[in-house]
Amino acid sequence: MIRISVDVMGGDYGPEVTIEGAAVAQKHLPNVHFLFYGIEEVVKPILKKYPHLVAASQFYNTESYTRMDEKPSQALRIGRGKSSMWHAIEAVKNGEADACVSAGNTGALMAMSHFCLKMMAESNRPGIAGIWPTLRGESIVLDIGATIGASADQLVDLAVMGAGMFRTLYNVEKPSVGLLNVGVEEVKGLDEIKKAGIILREVQLEGLEYKGFIEGNDIGKGVVDVVVTEGFSGNIALKVAEGTARQIAGLLNIVMRRSIFSRLGYVLSRGAFRQLKQKIDPDRINGGVLLGLNGIVIKSHGGVNAGGFASAIRIGYEMVNNELLKKIVEDLRHFHENKMTF
Amino acid sequence: MIRISVDVMGGDYGPEVTIEGAAVAQKHLPNVHFLFYGIEEVVKPILKKYPHLVAASQFYNTESYTRMDEKPSQALRIGRGKSSMWHAIEAVKNGEADACVSAGNTGALMAMSHFCLKMMAESNRPGIAGIWPTLRGESIVLDIGATIGASADQLVDLAVMGAGMFRTLYNVEKPSVGLLNVGVEEVKGLDEIKKAGIILREVQLEGLEYKGFIEGNDIGKGVVDVVVTEGFSGNIALKVAEGTARQIAGLLNIVMRRSIFSRLGYVLSRGAFRQLKQKIDPDRINGGVLLGLNGIVIKSHGGVNAGGFASAIRIGYEMVNNELLKKIVEDLRHFHENKMTF
Repeated sequence: MIRISVDVMGGDYGPEVTIEGAAVAQKHLPNVHFLFYGIEEVVKPILKKYPHLVAASQFYNTESYTRMDEKPSQALRIGRGKSSMWHAIEAVKNGEADACVSAGNTGALMAMSHFCLKMMAESNRPGIAGIWPTLRGESIVLDIGATIGASADQLVDLAVMGAGMFRTLYNVEKPSVGLLNVGVEEVKGLDEIKKAGIILREVQLEGLEYKGFIEGNDIGKGVVDVVVTEGFSGNIALKVAEGTARQIAGLLNIVMRRSIFSRLGYVLSRGAFRQLKQKIDPDRINGGVLLGLNGIVIKSHGGVNAGGFASAIRIGYEMVNNELLKKIVEDLRHFHENKMTF
Repeated sequence: MIRISVDVMGGDYGPEVTIEGAAVAQKHLPNVHFLFYGIEEVVKPILKKYPHLVAASQFYNTESYTRMDEKPSQALRIGRGKSSMWHAIEAVKNGEADACVSAGNTGALMAMSHFCLKMMAESNRPGIAGIWPTLRGESIVLDIGATIGASADQLVDLAVMGAGMFRTLYNVEKPSVGLLNVGVEEVKGLDEIKKAGIILREVQLEGLEYKGFIEGNDIGKGVVDVVVTEGFSGNIALKVAEGTARQIAGLLNIVMRRSIFSRLGYVLSRGAFRQLKQKIDPDRINGGVLLGLNGIVIKSHGGVNAGGFASAIRIGYEMVNNELLKKIVEDLRHFHENKMTF
């Protein structure tokens, strides 16, 4: 059995979406069990609509929940020991759950997870890893918003963790890794990125293949399996890609309605558009994974729909199933040992 | 007459594209005159193919040209007084040209322009401003790659310059301005961005309306006319948007060929697709404008086609026509005077 704790109150739409998302996930994941944390009077009427889910879950009433606009420090101070987010994370710490999923306030989730689960001894940088649809399949991009700025060593830690995650999810022995920069030439970009490039090139890591710098437009081409960057530019990149996808979908919608021919064309091409939407829909693939902590915490997009929340749950499920944490710890240890002798 | 100096050798494809681009631009711009700088034996055979262009231009043979992979400092050292890029910029300095256009190495163009034209006394930050197609029309995003990092004051300078450019190109009295950040809440993001937000809120500038922080996905929605950010994240944002647009176009192409229905649908919808392509084609709208210098320099994308290079020329032309520089100087002066009394 794989046990997922859910901060039911998180996200822009709260339990309406998170509970439905859990119900969607339940259909596809064998042996999943949920621990739901939230405000009873809000959650229970919604939960009742899904009897199968009630049978495969436990509901825990919590005193409060963390608002989307709370500062991380404030959320931790007032939510500690009380909020649905806190309890969902604590369930992982206490060994009651194998992974936690929340669509709540990213900063608060990061702060609480950091405080409650603590950093892995082997890592010196937490990061949020996102799954990015590309022309060649999917890539992992990290950090997409856990922390602003990163030293060279921290970027290398992100590379090692991201490669471990890619290996676990996609069964690729030696994922390719690129550092996001403003040019592919070795002379360009921030000093810490250049230094991280030198470390990755010199310390030949067994678990990944370093490919050098990549630029923003290379992510969507899928030129590498793992894209490494610090949290500010990673977050900008992620949101720009989402925004561009929505913008093009919106424009397509407008131009296809303009003439009788294009309307007919649209009807004939509906299957193709559906396939396209599946490939690029930001809601479908949206789970962010908090890496570097002693536990698996999945951050779902705040504005997500039920299908998107279900994807986030599935990612947590697969990580537990594939023993991601154990593998990342091994990889980081291996890297730091290699680094010593370098 | 508006005189444009062109670094004919710049870009991934050199004179084949830049000369054809000038020929395309010439058809649409009344009273344009070109000063072409490049290697005679390469350029002349190509130029000959466009007799109308020969009649409205002057060709200048140069000793060398700046390679796409030269470091900025190296390009300046070996290209100063010699390369086609240098001469095209110098023509603006000497008053022989009103604006310079190059598709060459961005770092080199920035370094040479900075060295040759010098910073405006009124600005303490050079920036490259790009035009970004949105759901509502077009926005200006800056800095998209001139300099990495920016202080709060420098971000405000970028805001003032970007607003001036928007006003000039689109005839909007008080363009709306947003600071690109990882969240819209005032507590989020880098310290310098937060400080810039406070300055923009407190110093009520006449020439712009400050709207607060925006996120990456807001750019494509067109929520503000001018998006302000430092050069690293701005460059990542630009390239991610381009990459995502190309990725979606590629996927659309694949899914539309899959069935006989969608192929027929494609034929019927061709007009709509053409409209979509025109709206999102990164080659069509690609001119980057170097702001903060004593002269107008337009950076065109290195991988641009002739149509894209023609757009870059058109932007330079319109800036001269609308006296952009004079207006920016006035705006910056006005801002710095207001700031004193604050």
